[in-house]
Amino acid sequence: MDLFYAVDLAGVFVFAISGALAAREKKMDLFGIFIIAFVTGLGGGTLRDVLLGRTPVFWMQAPIYVAMIFGGTLFAIIFRNKIHYLRKSLLLFDTIGIAFFTIIGTEIALSFSYELHPTIVVSIGVMSACFGGVIRDILCNDIPVIFHKEIYATPCVVGSLMYLGLKELPFFHDYISLITIVFIIAFRIYAIKKSLELPKIG
Amino acid sequence: MDLFYAVDLAGVFVFAISGALAAREKKMDLFGIFIIAFVTGLGGGTLRDVLLGRTPVFWMQAPIYVAMIFGGTLFAIIFRNKIHYLRKSLLLFDTIGIAFFTIIGTEIALSFSYELHPTIVVSIGVMSACFGGVIRDILCNDIPVIFHKEIYATPCVVGSLMYLGLKELPFFHDYISLITIVFIIAFRIYAIKKSLELPKIG
Amino acid sequence: MDLFYAVDLAGVFVFAISGALAAREKKMDLFGIFIIAFVTGLGGGTLRDVLLGRTPVFWMQAPIYVAMIFGGTLFAIIFRNKIHYLRKSLLLFDTIGIAFFTIIGTEIALSFSYELHPTIVVSIGVMSACFGGVIRDILCNDIPVIFHKEIYATPCVVGSLMYLGLKELPFFHDYISLITIVFIIAFRIYAIKKSLELPKIG
Repeated sequence: MDLFYAVDLAGVFVFAISGALAAREKKMDLFGIFIIAFVTGLGGGTLRDVLLGRTPVFWMQAPIYVAMIFGGTLFAIIFRNKIHYLRKSLLLFDTIGIAFFTIIGTEIALSFSYELHPTIVVSIGVMSACFGGVIRDILCNDIPVIFHKEIYATPCVVGSLMYLGLKELPFFHDYISLITIVFIIAFRIYAIKKSLELPKIG
Repeated sequence: MDLFYAVDLAGVFVFAISGALAAREKKMDLFGIFIIAFVTGLGGGTLRDVLLGRTPVFWMQAPIYVAMIFGGTLFAIIFRNKIHYLRKSLLLFDTIGIAFFTIIGTEIALSFSYELHPTIVVSIGVMSACFGGVIRDILCNDIPVIFHKEIYATPCVVGSLMYLGLKELPFFHDYISLITIVFIIAFRIYAIKKSLELPKIG
Repeated sequence: MDLFYAVDLAGVFVFAISGALAAREKKMDLFGIFIIAFVTGLGGGTLRDVLLGRTPVFWMQAPIYVAMIFGGTLFAIIFRNKIHYLRKSLLLFDTIGIAFFTIIGTEIALSFSYELHPTIVVSIGVMSACFGGVIRDILCNDIPVIFHKEIYATPCVVGSLMYLGLKELPFFHDYISLITIVFIIAFRIYAIKKSLELPKIG
């Protein structure tokens, strides 16, 4: 469980780096860079909490998340010229991040005080993982990249569905989170390697 | 009442079509098309619920709304090359949709646990009807069309006000929803036919 | 206290003017102008309330704030050609406005039912003051100006921190709000006069 928590925080850290780099490319100042790092790392979970009514939202009750944003921003600024050496590691951590965020979001939805429909549970899981990036792109005045490029949300959708399916089976109980997280990571890496894209409607 | 509910769902369906078509024009992929359909159909009511504190927001408790989004998206994709034949029908349904959403939003605001000022009630009604389109345009990286073109929100404002006025009179009680919905539809169609626009400030 | 309240309302009024002028420059119609004035004046506090779970959000319970938006919009439209004479006064009032909004937001966060971490308290104060302008810029399809130009959020951050610091000292208790508000105003005016900017990361 502590490992789980540590990886969750690492995910936020890496998302913050990606946000800070995007903001720097848009020539934002220090404040803008911090805010974009913040919404990239914590925006998805914030939206989830607001729509569910889990307020104050999670990071208001656990400032360590905000510390991760500070850390990720600082890291991005200091290593900005060396970060292309880290591109692959960052992509890997980003992938680990969305896998964790999806499953954490799915579990939060499942543990909600009254039962939510599986479609809603999956939506909440995917939203937790993917909508930080959507808010980042809106604040950067771009069309959200996950709406037109790359397979990004699809592994989250399938992984969250898989979680719900495995839960119905009589075995695996203790390993469902782990299995689905590994599945999402593998699916996403496969999609990157093969440059898969979702179809557009011509 | 069942008719009322059916028309509400039909409104969401048609809004989803309009969202899906907008997303397709922006060359989004399947995921992007679905999300834009979603926010167009359900974004206004979601914003209303969040600002009022009615959480979890309505569609989390009634997944049939999400089913309407799937349906509308699918419809838009399948009939994408024939949809210009349907343009007039779609515009009509969109108009029926905003009329219903306005009055449903107004009634939700009126039935709120403590009394809200009439200005606030009208704001909530108009927000329910019009802000799905605003969120759609933001995610598509456009200035919201209802801020600079067409008479769209005005019939909703007037219709919601009319609802509040009629409620004070000793007759009509059973027909107020119906009367104001018909009024909004008529006003909007008239505005389209005459190409009315709100004044700009030169 | 009544003076405090009056200045708060005046702040909303001036923010509404700035929003209305921005919307007019984007060639929006009357409805668009009103909505942009609304989000500029009330968006920061709305976001604060939503994230904290203080719903219905403040202006739904105090329609006088909406009246300020109407007033500010009307003022901007009537005096649109004379407003450059007022530029300096408006900038001053805007500065007074963010100072008040920061400290009001800080105090709301401090008075919250359970204790929030100082970092969170400061975030909430700054959000209350600065995020109305962020939402304005998003709806106008611009990158938020406070992310790349001018020192705007910095005086709010420092002022809110100073509030927390002074609260720990055994003196000043009755004057903390006043002192920090004056400090924010002075810092912001100094930054304008010297054309200070936050560093960017080259």
